[in-house]
Amino acid sequence: MAEFFNVLPPDDARELLLRHIRPIDEIERVATADALGRVTAEALFAPHALPTFRRSTMDGYALRAADSHGATDSLPALLRVVGEVAMGRAADVPFRQPGQAVIVHTGGMLPDWADAVAPVEHTQIVATVAEPGENEIELYRACAAGQNVIQIGEDVAQNGEVLPQGTPLRPQDIGGLLAFGITAIAVTRRPRIAILATGDEVVPPEATPEPGQIRDINSYTIGGLCRRAGGLPQSWGIIADDLPALLAATGAALAQSDMLVITAGSSVSARDMTVQAIAALGRPGVLLHGVATRPGKPTILGAIDGKPVLGLPGNPVSAMVQFDMLGVPAIYRLQGATSRPPRSRIWATLTQNVPSESGREDYVPARLTETAAGYTTTPVFGKSNLIFTLVQTDGLIKVPLNKGGLLAGETVEVILF
Amino acid sequence: MAEFFNVLPPDDARELLLRHIRPIDEIERVATADALGRVTAEALFAPHALPTFRRSTMDGYALRAADSHGATDSLPALLRVVGEVAMGRAADVPFRQPGQAVIVHTGGMLPDWADAVAPVEHTQIVATVAEPGENEIELYRACAAGQNVIQIGEDVAQNGEVLPQGTPLRPQDIGGLLAFGITAIAVTRRPRIAILATGDEVVPPEATPEPGQIRDINSYTIGGLCRRAGGLPQSWGIIADDLPALLAATGAALAQSDMLVITAGSSVSARDMTVQAIAALGRPGVLLHGVATRPGKPTILGAIDGKPVLGLPGNPVSAMVQFDMLGVPAIYRLQGATSRPPRSRIWATLTQNVPSESGREDYVPARLTETAAGYTTTPVFGKSNLIFTLVQTDGLIKVPLNKGGLLAGETVEVILF
Repeated sequence: MAEFFNVLPPDDARELLLRHIRPIDEIERVATADALGRVTAEALFAPHALPTFRRSTMDGYALRAADSHGATDSLPALLRVVGEVAMGRAADVPFRQPGQAVIVHTGGMLPDWADAVAPVEHTQIVATVAEPGENEIELYRACAAGQNVIQIGEDVAQNGEVLPQGTPLRPQDIGGLLAFGITAIAVTRRPRIAILATGDEVVPPEATPEPGQIRDINSYTIGGLCRRAGGLPQSWGIIADDLPALLAATGAALAQSDMLVITAGSSVSARDMTVQAIAALGRPGVLLHGVATRPGKPTILGAIDGKPVLGLPGNPVSAMVQFDMLGVPAIYRLQGATSRPPRSRIWATLTQNVPSESGREDYVPARLTETAAGYTTTPVFGKSNLIFTLVQTDGLIKVPLNKGGLLAGETVEVILF
Repeated sequence: MAEFFNVLPPDDARELLLRHIRPIDEIERVATADALGRVTAEALFAPHALPTFRRSTMDGYALRAADSHGATDSLPALLRVVGEVAMGRAADVPFRQPGQAVIVHTGGMLPDWADAVAPVEHTQIVATVAEPGENEIELYRACAAGQNVIQIGEDVAQNGEVLPQGTPLRPQDIGGLLAFGITAIAVTRRPRIAILATGDEVVPPEATPEPGQIRDINSYTIGGLCRRAGGLPQSWGIIADDLPALLAATGAALAQSDMLVITAGSSVSARDMTVQAIAALGRPGVLLHGVATRPGKPTILGAIDGKPVLGLPGNPVSAMVQFDMLGVPAIYRLQGATSRPPRSRIWATLTQNVPSESGREDYVPARLTETAAGYTTTPVFGKSNLIFTLVQTDGLIKVPLNKGGLLAGETVEVILF
């Protein structure tokens, strides 16, 4: 190969890839209630203040704070309860006299003349008045204006931003939109991710492998990671190690998708073929020939006219770790998100040393054990061909780029995987 | 209310609830490739060893380690390359003489007489032999038996456990099953979670609230959390604060589902009504009247004949935090999982003090900021009625049960939410 073999640290590699991605500009209008995990295609603003009326945060009495000033156990304020605000109804009790109060329930509306709520525990009924439903109460604590009240617009002001464009929607975001009656929203179309397995040795999972053959699993593990990130994986099957066949398949797959993932064989010749195929697809083509990580150094990054292209090592562990590191952020970027949601991780105490090399970011599969004092983690060293090192573990210990290894007893970051 | 008002710490409350759950015993047979997030209903065992043949981990020469003994730069071993193992083919090169080697690619099969692979970088071709495709090479490093070889069964031995019963399937688990050609599996039926909103003040999201009314959002935030855990949320609409109506609705909803969630009003009277409705559903009925947490103390736990029942506070923040803490583990238990997957969390440096009370577990919404030195987190104090404290934050700072608060500068656990 005449091309210069260039390798970057993972953060730089990811930035390089993301810079070459053009987010999808097709939007879909979907029911907000069904939009979990979708990414907003427009900023959304509050059509009205939230809440729209002043609400009590507890069961008690709505009153004028001024009427409670100085109230103590020995010198309580005397208040006249003149009614009750029913849940879900306007608080239309009129103002008649200083010292009046109304019963209000948690979440209920305050009358316009009231500015605080006294908790029921700070009061006592002292006399039942002749008028039906009216009482006299003693109040043993002074209230500050605004106490136990949610003000109009305290959650969101009218015209305030509800959600920015590019937000992957969580359950609470959906709740926030529905609180404003925003029952349909514009989201970015889900990216179609073409996945193409290559290798003369690879057969479909339903086949019985002959000696020397293995079943394709990368198409499915990568597909699962795609789905979790909001992408629509589309398997393009298994292509033999044959350049014309690979060129035909990658061209067709890229034309019909937003992102192309090739899980190559890990041999130098299979890798060379992937590089040639990506270069032949268009401009700019191959961006990078490797990432300074283990597993997965020989990952190839490319982009064609705004669409990301990944050439992953065939080893199943490398393929998954690299796709999580590079492909998942790419899927979020395609959807217009400014970043992927933070990866799930747990800090745990390491039970044994983990050797590494400075200048390389390592990800070591590891088991987690929950103890009374927190989590401990035990690395599972296995060749990166062995998918069961990921099946039998809970996550990946990250050995940072600038560290030569990790020591037993250190607190380390375990990325749940 | 005559009943004793009992409160437990969150871990004890969860254990109490889980103890009363009978996992669903209906199984479904699904395509393994489509089973992401489903829970295995049976233990799965390896029908054959994995890998089924000895494989090379690199590009190089398969040889007998004994023939390389003592090889150094100054005294290389001389080997005769007698062929090449093509990818995906049986390594049927016969043994003819000591010192022979064959070209093998990463992932390729080793001939039965070879027991190690010498990396191509440790060799040099010294002579091209008359026989087509045969060479003589010098090898500059001795190989140990087994070097750069994956042994038969090194990933999983025949009849070894592939996955235990009760495993929520991740992408790598699906890959592990497909590696054995297990293309269909038995999973537990997805639990149907009936969600019932109550409150005279609650209207559907599509309605325009009158003064004193609010839109239902809890049905949708809880629905989203259900879906993430593998449950099928079913909204049973909004029931007024009226005991006969509530009894009718809860009875019908529980009969047609595996779990019942009532998001009640937060007033004492609404809460009492929820307790009465749960008690009327059957045995054992109400298990607990409160959980020692903030937000969410007045959560009611119940169980009816193996089905969990939750009475959540109506405040949207409390409802979500409590459902994540109690409802999500219940959904996993219904599916036969021994535990929920660990919650995603990040350790971050706290930017300001967080007050709390010993004997109570607090969850404070917080923003995360990524810095060169790691994450920092800033609590967002807001009343638990305000859904936007969860919309505008990244997670929840957990203040442990036995701590009176957290101090600025401490490293704290933030649960991604």
